[in-house]
Amino acid sequence: MDRRLISVIHGPNLNLLGEREPDVYGSETLDDIDGALGGLARELGVDLECFQSNSEGEIIDRLHSCSGRADGVILNAGAYTHYSIAIRDAIAAIRPPVVEVHLSNVHAREDFRRVSVIAPVCVGQISGFGSTSYLLALEALARACKERS
Amino acid sequence: MDRRLISVIHGPNLNLLGEREPDVYGSETLDDIDGALGGLARELGVDLECFQSNSEGEIIDRLHSCSGRADGVILNAGAYTHYSIAIRDAIAAIRPPVVEVHLSNVHAREDFRRVSVIAPVCVGQISGFGSTSYLLALEALARACKERS
Amino acid sequence: MDRRLISVIHGPNLNLLGEREPDVYGSETLDDIDGALGGLARELGVDLECFQSNSEGEIIDRLHSCSGRADGVILNAGAYTHYSIAIRDAIAAIRPPVVEVHLSNVHAREDFRRVSVIAPVCVGQISGFGSTSYLLALEALARACKERS
Amino acid sequence: MDRRLISVIHGPNLNLLGEREPDVYGSETLDDIDGALGGLARELGVDLECFQSNSEGEIIDRLHSCSGRADGVILNAGAYTHYSIAIRDAIAAIRPPVVEVHLSNVHAREDFRRVSVIAPVCVGQISGFGSTSYLLALEALARACKERS
Amino acid sequence: MDRRLISVIHGPNLNLLGEREPDVYGSETLDDIDGALGGLARELGVDLECFQSNSEGEIIDRLHSCSGRADGVILNAGAYTHYSIAIRDAIAAIRPPVVEVHLSNVHAREDFRRVSVIAPVCVGQISGFGSTSYLLALEALARACKERS
Amino acid sequence: MDRRLISVIHGPNLNLLGEREPDVYGSETLDDIDGALGGLARELGVDLECFQSNSEGEIIDRLHSCSGRADGVILNAGAYTHYSIAIRDAIAAIRPPVVEVHLSNVHAREDFRRVSVIAPVCVGQISGFGSTSYLLALEALARACKERS
Amino acid sequence: MDRRLISVIHGPNLNLLGEREPDVYGSETLDDIDGALGGLARELGVDLECFQSNSEGEIIDRLHSCSGRADGVILNAGAYTHYSIAIRDAIAAIRPPVVEVHLSNVHAREDFRRVSVIAPVCVGQISGFGSTSYLLALEALARACKERS
Amino acid sequence: MDRRLISVIHGPNLNLLGEREPDVYGSETLDDIDGALGGLARELGVDLECFQSNSEGEIIDRLHSCSGRADGVILNAGAYTHYSIAIRDAIAAIRPPVVEVHLSNVHAREDFRRVSVIAPVCVGQISGFGSTSYLLALEALARACKERS
Amino acid sequence: MDRRLISVIHGPNLNLLGEREPDVYGSETLDDIDGALGGLARELGVDLECFQSNSEGEIIDRLHSCSGRADGVILNAGAYTHYSIAIRDAIAAIRPPVVEVHLSNVHAREDFRRVSVIAPVCVGQISGFGSTSYLLALEALARACKERS
Amino acid sequence: MDRRLISVIHGPNLNLLGEREPDVYGSETLDDIDGALGGLARELGVDLECFQSNSEGEIIDRLHSCSGRADGVILNAGAYTHYSIAIRDAIAAIRPPVVEVHLSNVHAREDFRRVSVIAPVCVGQISGFGSTSYLLALEALARACKERS
Amino acid sequence: MDRRLISVIHGPNLNLLGEREPDVYGSETLDDIDGALGGLARELGVDLECFQSNSEGEIIDRLHSCSGRADGVILNAGAYTHYSIAIRDAIAAIRPPVVEVHLSNVHAREDFRRVSVIAPVCVGQISGFGSTSYLLALEALARACKERS
Amino acid sequence: MDRRLISVIHGPNLNLLGEREPDVYGSETLDDIDGALGGLARELGVDLECFQSNSEGEIIDRLHSCSGRADGVILNAGAYTHYSIAIRDAIAAIRPPVVEVHLSNVHAREDFRRVSVIAPVCVGQISGFGSTSYLLALEALARACKERS
Repeated sequence: MDRRLISVIHGPNLNLLGEREPDVYGSETLDDIDGALGGLARELGVDLECFQSNSEGEIIDRLHSCSGRADGVILNAGAYTHYSIAIRDAIAAIRPPVVEVHLSNVHAREDFRRVSVIAPVCVGQISGFGSTSYLLALEALARACKERS
Repeated sequence: MDRRLISVIHGPNLNLLGEREPDVYGSETLDDIDGALGGLARELGVDLECFQSNSEGEIIDRLHSCSGRADGVILNAGAYTHYSIAIRDAIAAIRPPVVEVHLSNVHAREDFRRVSVIAPVCVGQISGFGSTSYLLALEALARACKERS
Repeated sequence: MDRRLISVIHGPNLNLLGEREPDVYGSETLDDIDGALGGLARELGVDLECFQSNSEGEIIDRLHSCSGRADGVILNAGAYTHYSIAIRDAIAAIRPPVVEVHLSNVHAREDFRRVSVIAPVCVGQISGFGSTSYLLALEALARACKERS
Repeated sequence: MDRRLISVIHGPNLNLLGEREPDVYGSETLDDIDGALGGLARELGVDLECFQSNSEGEIIDRLHSCSGRADGVILNAGAYTHYSIAIRDAIAAIRPPVVEVHLSNVHAREDFRRVSVIAPVCVGQISGFGSTSYLLALEALARACKERS
Repeated sequence: MDRRLISVIHGPNLNLLGEREPDVYGSETLDDIDGALGGLARELGVDLECFQSNSEGEIIDRLHSCSGRADGVILNAGAYTHYSIAIRDAIAAIRPPVVEVHLSNVHAREDFRRVSVIAPVCVGQISGFGSTSYLLALEALARACKERS
Repeated sequence: MDRRLISVIHGPNLNLLGEREPDVYGSETLDDIDGALGGLARELGVDLECFQSNSEGEIIDRLHSCSGRADGVILNAGAYTHYSIAIRDAIAAIRPPVVEVHLSNVHAREDFRRVSVIAPVCVGQISGFGSTSYLLALEALARACKERS
Repeated sequence: MDRRLISVIHGPNLNLLGEREPDVYGSETLDDIDGALGGLARELGVDLECFQSNSEGEIIDRLHSCSGRADGVILNAGAYTHYSIAIRDAIAAIRPPVVEVHLSNVHAREDFRRVSVIAPVCVGQISGFGSTSYLLALEALARACKERS
Repeated sequence: MDRRLISVIHGPNLNLLGEREPDVYGSETLDDIDGALGGLARELGVDLECFQSNSEGEIIDRLHSCSGRADGVILNAGAYTHYSIAIRDAIAAIRPPVVEVHLSNVHAREDFRRVSVIAPVCVGQISGFGSTSYLLALEALARACKERS
Repeated sequence: MDRRLISVIHGPNLNLLGEREPDVYGSETLDDIDGALGGLARELGVDLECFQSNSEGEIIDRLHSCSGRADGVILNAGAYTHYSIAIRDAIAAIRPPVVEVHLSNVHAREDFRRVSVIAPVCVGQISGFGSTSYLLALEALARACKERS
Repeated sequence: MDRRLISVIHGPNLNLLGEREPDVYGSETLDDIDGALGGLARELGVDLECFQSNSEGEIIDRLHSCSGRADGVILNAGAYTHYSIAIRDAIAAIRPPVVEVHLSNVHAREDFRRVSVIAPVCVGQISGFGSTSYLLALEALARACKERS
Repeated sequence: MDRRLISVIHGPNLNLLGEREPDVYGSETLDDIDGALGGLARELGVDLECFQSNSEGEIIDRLHSCSGRADGVILNAGAYTHYSIAIRDAIAAIRPPVVEVHLSNVHAREDFRRVSVIAPVCVGQISGFGSTSYLLALEALARACKERS
Repeated sequence: MDRRLISVIHGPNLNLLGEREPDVYGSETLDDIDGALGGLARELGVDLECFQSNSEGEIIDRLHSCSGRADGVILNAGAYTHYSIAIRDAIAAIRPPVVEVHLSNVHAREDFRRVSVIAPVCVGQISGFGSTSYLLALEALARACKERS
């Protein structure tokens, strides 16, 4: 049987992780997270690829590129979560299931962060566990892959 | 070192799981979920207790009883999620961290299910993965226990 | 052929009927209503059971208990009509059809009484006819039973 | 003692009943409903007259004409239910009690169908029972006539 | 110089004046009002014509008919005031100035009566003075005619 | 019989009339209006007093001073119309009837000018006729005085 | 093969076209538009019928009459576009596809003109091209007829 | 003359007082408050009974039980204040006056705490004085009893 | 130890107390209230000063003057309660604690009276007890003074 | 005379056409649409250029590049239609007229798709006719070019 | 050439500057600001006058007095910024340009401080720079004076 | 001491300045503005760099690049001001203070231009002074640099 590919997409400002508002987002860098994800992926026997962009258009392009290639997508759309209907449409347009993750508990912050325009087209949402949010998403997708295979 | 106790609280109508709207909630029963949680708890080396009630007051009482006793709470507050400020206050009043879980992707259903009045006082939210939502919550709490110890 | 069972559920504060705001709710007591319903049930050849509770959780429990047992439910959810999504979910979760009744014309009172969160999952709504609202509901359910049989 | 007259007013698009969206409104025609009402009226010993119009102005005229003549009005105002303040004012201006009926459960459809601008000036509302909604309304008015006489 | 023609248009339910909700609208009939207007018109040396309809379409037709013929219009659009954008467009489309009148103080009643969709295209609004509202409107239009001549 | 006293109160910025936004408010000054009102008062046989202030508190004081002394008040509250609940309470607290007037058609301007917090406690409203709005108000009050005497 | 029939329905105030607010609606009359439509219909080989009414009820009647007879409907519902749920229900109730047209760009005008209650039950919407809006609608329907045949 | 009975009802989560969010609610326990109330009751010569529940239904039952027995009720409905229309209806249904109290200044906290659905049916509201809120309520009721006697 | 000074500020229209809407505000005059407050102040051993103004600016000036001088302020801001952010800022800017009082139960009246823009910066709110509202506020402040001393 | 140039701009996710949600958007690919447009352009004697991008910034750049070069723009802004004020400003900033097109009937889908922030600055809107929407837009622009030449 | 006069108007509570909420407004007093403004005015060669009032009416009077006399106005309307339509009308009524200034970043505070009812009639807005906000406003007005001269 | 660097970022459509809607934005080009800023920078002794992009992602990248390098940022985010939470997060994530500028008085235009999602994380806002808005921002930042040094 083929190995599965999980694609991780980090949205705007996540490249600053570790130096950006550490009281909200913690001191881990994006490389730390990608490293931890890589470790877990090896453990679970799935392939992993990571990507970050501050551009809405590039995130849409990346989602499109996952369509025939990846078995699942982990998406932290950052601030685009709250208004990018274009990313929402990209998620709805592609085949692999997309899991929405957030580092912080978006529900405990400003009101506008409580609205996710992408949530209705994602399979599920995990928020508030810091970098663990990503790890749980990876496990959820790996489980789902196993069930489907 | 002591073993940790995780308390699971299932809210209203979850006792009907398996027969209630199976297209939305799946065919697993609550016992199936509690069984799967028990297996994972043993694997993770934590103790587990499960509880279900249709009564807002009993859920509050149960949350209170966790205060000095449990190291984490997994709460599927069901419909109370959307309006029970009393449960919200109970969560804020107790010491152990509470993880909010939902079987279905509440964001893909009726508008009123997109509002969670308890989310701002929970540590995080996991929704949309069926019974796996609970398992991920248990892993998240077990990880957090380990980090604290 | 078996006799049919219709279950009547009276919600919060209806136990005070007759003494509570008589200009709004009339001078009949709940026993008067149950008596009149019993008379009509005998006439229509259906069995009847009546229940009252001020507790949201007990009303949910009662709705659950109707699931494999009753052929129809008459529910006056009182004030819970306007916010109990938990009762709504219970109605959606059980098999027998539920008819929503109100003594007063809820549309001619405060704005918040015009919203029924349970109406979308009930088969129909009858309001404004005093105790006759219940009797009409019983006739509607008896007719529906006859059509199904 | 005189026989009582009940006036039935069917609003816009109800003339298409049977061919219009049968999944929502059923396969009975308006003549079927008027026939069933006639049968029940004979049984209850009341006179009945039926009227249909697609015109807001004609419905108002008809309501006015009921004022000194009919002992009760059964009104299915169709879509006018949701915005015709002019029909509302006509109901408030005339003497006989008006019962609002709907074939479908208007609360389980589009949001705008949940608002009835005429409900506050009607004596009561019956919705969701198909043509039985009309029959229940006729019984309610016949009962009320008997109590008044 | 020609005599001026003022056209009076009474909207829905105003034909019931005197018998309809006398505590809100007073005991004068529409004929009483037309009579008083006629008296004042003679005094002011203007011609007057009066019209009443319950039909939105007929009121629009009447407004159109005023276009090249009347020098001013007094319009009590009744309940249509609050939602008939079609009447609004008719007022905007014709040449003579239109004065909006109301018998009652619409601002002291239900919230929906505080919105006038026709007010922005009328020259002015007079409300709350009973039949005197019409007389003041006639004086205002007569003054304006005199200034223009 | 005593002569009647009508008190005219002009609110904020009306002292600038004639120089302020002449396309909205016309070129007449406040003195012109007071003069025209004086002329009409003599014609109608009533006494008149005029007052202007930019201060909400002084307008309230003036309204209070009318209580046992004036037989009617003509109030153009200017911008206070839209938010001064304190002036509203003063109107409700005093005995003489108050007529609300506006020079411009407030309904054809910014949205916030369409809300009058004082309208529900005034006897009526006249707007859009320029200085004629005041004259019509004076006639309305004089008529009412005559009817009461 | 039979020739196709396209029915054109013009709503309220469109009879004034050419004299009504020419800066918004242009100087063409309704006859000009019907003439241009007739020319294009001949070119496309379809039959055409045109109708105008200011009455909501008559527009509903006309829509009903199209049901078994016309192959497509071009509807400019004028102001009724924004509130006539009754016309919406008539469109949903009949068989031929209905295309919504507007002369002006309704989205560039008052806020209330941006809401179309009929749009969700029409096949498509064309607005802003003056009389060309109608011609494009005719072409769209003729194309659709050809595809179906 | 009989001694008066004042009934104190503490709502959800108030049993945790002293350990729950002490920065918001202070360090006094519920027993401390009941003790202080008892002392003041003796001073004022009234009888006192205290009750706490986390259950909406039990609070309603308790309010009902006050009806023919207590001369006044002091109610801190906690979070139920903000949504329990059922408790509101219970207050409206019973005879003794109910005073609404809050320990914290609910107006200085989250927006949803500024809405009290029970306030319109209570005689008055006291909030923000910590346990003194209860003492002031007791004095208010004792004064009112004295005035009535 | 020094005697404490409590400053009482009565807002707009309270000077009319006794003659203004007695069904809402009772028949006591402002002098009656100030007298009762004076009596209680002597009993409690605190100094008292009373002030009334209809002017928002004067109320702000008075609040400022309390800053280094008074130990507590009792403020009935009347209608300004609902919109005067300027008074709110004055309260926040001064040192002594301010207690908000209302004679009537503002929550049982018009919707706009349910909003208090000053509540978030006051220490507490007492409403609905007539003149007793003031007396309770005085007791609350006297208690707080004693605790601080 | 010069040939005219019409520029077609396809927004986000339209590159997936044919594979993306075919029940909503049909099975035609973007190349099919561009081909059909090319054919019609030749027929109408106008030049055509087509462009697609998922990036808001690139769409703005493209609109700018049309300014002195194209005689009309056909824009399907996809999801950006609903929130990109930046694209709106670009349309307003350039000279050629822009026609807004949509494949699906956006008014029959989710609520947020009913809002077009670009509509007020486009000349017109065509939606719901699948790829025919583009063809009608091209005809409309070609007609307009002819009228201007 | 004449020297230019710039008039500075400080609104409610600004007299407390330096002692009022220093974490929000800083420790500078109003005299400090007026002094710094005076220094810059001398540098720029313009005359300056400063005024403070807590009264809405006095601020309006002051604005009126600027009309024929000052060449520009710097207005910090304080809390009146958010609701004083009367001050807005005064600004619109006078000739000299008015610049709106705020010490704090009003957009980073409570929601109600984000609305400025005066902004649409001011030439521009400067907020968030502490006392520098005033200095920048003075430079902006001085530049504009130079351009006009 | 080192020279300070101020970074200027111009958002979408600002490259069209001078040709785009000159009645709103004036006839100066972006080069004119950058030139004027350069002149003032030399005068103030600070370094300056200017950047323009129509892409949200590039603006975010540019803001990030300022983090360890620039001493202040002048940002005219154009239309992104009103919805780009991603730009807001970038501003919050970087170290140098950001000043928000607008050429036009955004408060005097469409409603949606009155909302700035970036304002709460900027140090201040300057709008309405044309290109002078930028110059004032540069002075403000230069002053702040001087105070910090």
